[in-house]
Amino acid sequence: VIVVSDTGMLGPDQPSLCYALRGLLYTQIEVTGPTRDLHSGEFGGAVKNPAIALAQILAGLHAADGRVTVPGFYDRVRALTDLERTAMAELPFDEAGFIRESGAPVAVGERGYTTLERITARPTLDVNGMWSGYIGDGAKTVLPSFAAAKVSMRLVPDQDPDALFPAYEAHVRGLAPAGVTVKVINHHGAVPFITSPEHPMMQAAYRALARSWTKKPALIREGGSIPVMATFQQVLGLPSILMGFGLHDDQVHAPNEKFSLTSFHGGTKSCAYLYEELARG
Amino acid sequence: VIVVSDTGMLGPDQPSLCYALRGLLYTQIEVTGPTRDLHSGEFGGAVKNPAIALAQILAGLHAADGRVTVPGFYDRVRALTDLERTAMAELPFDEAGFIRESGAPVAVGERGYTTLERITARPTLDVNGMWSGYIGDGAKTVLPSFAAAKVSMRLVPDQDPDALFPAYEAHVRGLAPAGVTVKVINHHGAVPFITSPEHPMMQAAYRALARSWTKKPALIREGGSIPVMATFQQVLGLPSILMGFGLHDDQVHAPNEKFSLTSFHGGTKSCAYLYEELARG
Repeated sequence: VIVVSDTGMLGPDQPSLCYALRGLLYTQIEVTGPTRDLHSGEFGGAVKNPAIALAQILAGLHAADGRVTVPGFYDRVRALTDLERTAMAELPFDEAGFIRESGAPVAVGERGYTTLERITARPTLDVNGMWSGYIGDGAKTVLPSFAAAKVSMRLVPDQDPDALFPAYEAHVRGLAPAGVTVKVINHHGAVPFITSPEHPMMQAAYRALARSWTKKPALIREGGSIPVMATFQQVLGLPSILMGFGLHDDQVHAPNEKFSLTSFHGGTKSCAYLYEELARG
Repeated sequence: VIVVSDTGMLGPDQPSLCYALRGLLYTQIEVTGPTRDLHSGEFGGAVKNPAIALAQILAGLHAADGRVTVPGFYDRVRALTDLERTAMAELPFDEAGFIRESGAPVAVGERGYTTLERITARPTLDVNGMWSGYIGDGAKTVLPSFAAAKVSMRLVPDQDPDALFPAYEAHVRGLAPAGVTVKVINHHGAVPFITSPEHPMMQAAYRALARSWTKKPALIREGGSIPVMATFQQVLGLPSILMGFGLHDDQVHAPNEKFSLTSFHGGTKSCAYLYEELARG
């Protein structure tokens, strides 16, 4: 059995056992207009501005209802069952606290889904970075030659990053206005992961968590990606347990990342009990 | 009389006397979503991405016909007369060469106008710079907190940057989607400039150029801005001569800027003759 501790808990006292992860398709869009930076007084109005062209492409990647516009994007998405949606709605997920903790003014996402469904069981598209022209203090009247954005998609079972990329690339090219050339780079991908909570090894992990914490474990999906999980599944053919202890305010991948002492102590106990429960089969 | 040598020539052997300049309104749009950078796996799909919000705002600033969408933007634009358009069409302006020299694949601009009209007598809007999130090599799955763009407008007589800014700011706020906060900064402005080619001092400059070069001078408008020109006009009440010798391939405001020796020598002669012609009145 594979045991990975890289997932989170629904709260500091809520043990959580994860049975699904999102995958990833991470790309870069590069737009070139003029071959060199120009003076916007001399050339402004005569040639297509690549930063505006990039903005037009990025703005075209979502529909008004929050859905991603790449043709076929949702074709292989495994729909949430009614049973799954009911179970998710009953999880002790503090939506208001989650949004407040993000610092965003309101929740915004795909229409027809709850925040928890959006961040774990629905695919998304985000801009992770963007740059063009003059980015220092004050003003420079440059008409930039180049603009680029890092654009990544979180995928869900049974989407496949390699199968999606060509459709995505063609869509980006189709959104590009006249007067620029566009390059689309596939940085890397991760296949989404899903396993059965009914597997005996998952049941062993469930019992280990139940013995270590006061609350019963929650069965959850996670929105992040652990690319190696799908590889373990495909190559080793072994069951995988995702038993992690991260919290939403850990500031993961951001400045001042932390790990809570309650998670450290509860996680230590859970791992010790896991060996015992696995030995019991 | 004010003499300023900060304008250009239509070609290396084509002396040019400038009678109008565009003005400028230089702004910065700052978009904040979450108050800190987030992990796109954990939060992606739940909150509005500020880089996408900024892209949506920027994409909304132009209509499909290339016109700027700010309400009232064209209200005070002095329309080109038929006479002026005919004179401009007869100027030895090498449009194909101009676009080729910019390195852009094709000319793109406001529908219904020639390239020369677009860059000198029509107002425009350009993104001069743009930044958000992770802009290094490779991939980082960050959901950025912040995105910003430098956006400037070239104005023409009788547009006024101070009068336009509030309409622009309100329009940008109106284009912003839910889930972000928007700040619009007015960096600085320049009032557009126009003078009469019939003024005796302009006629003196015309004769000076005619004596220094083999071709007859062209009467031109320029697309750039020289903010102090409108101030000279307003405060000093003196006539202004714009007699410059820059070339389109000078790479103005860009790396490897240069000044041609033919312009240096022809410009030196023109300035000497100008003193003689001005003395004649």
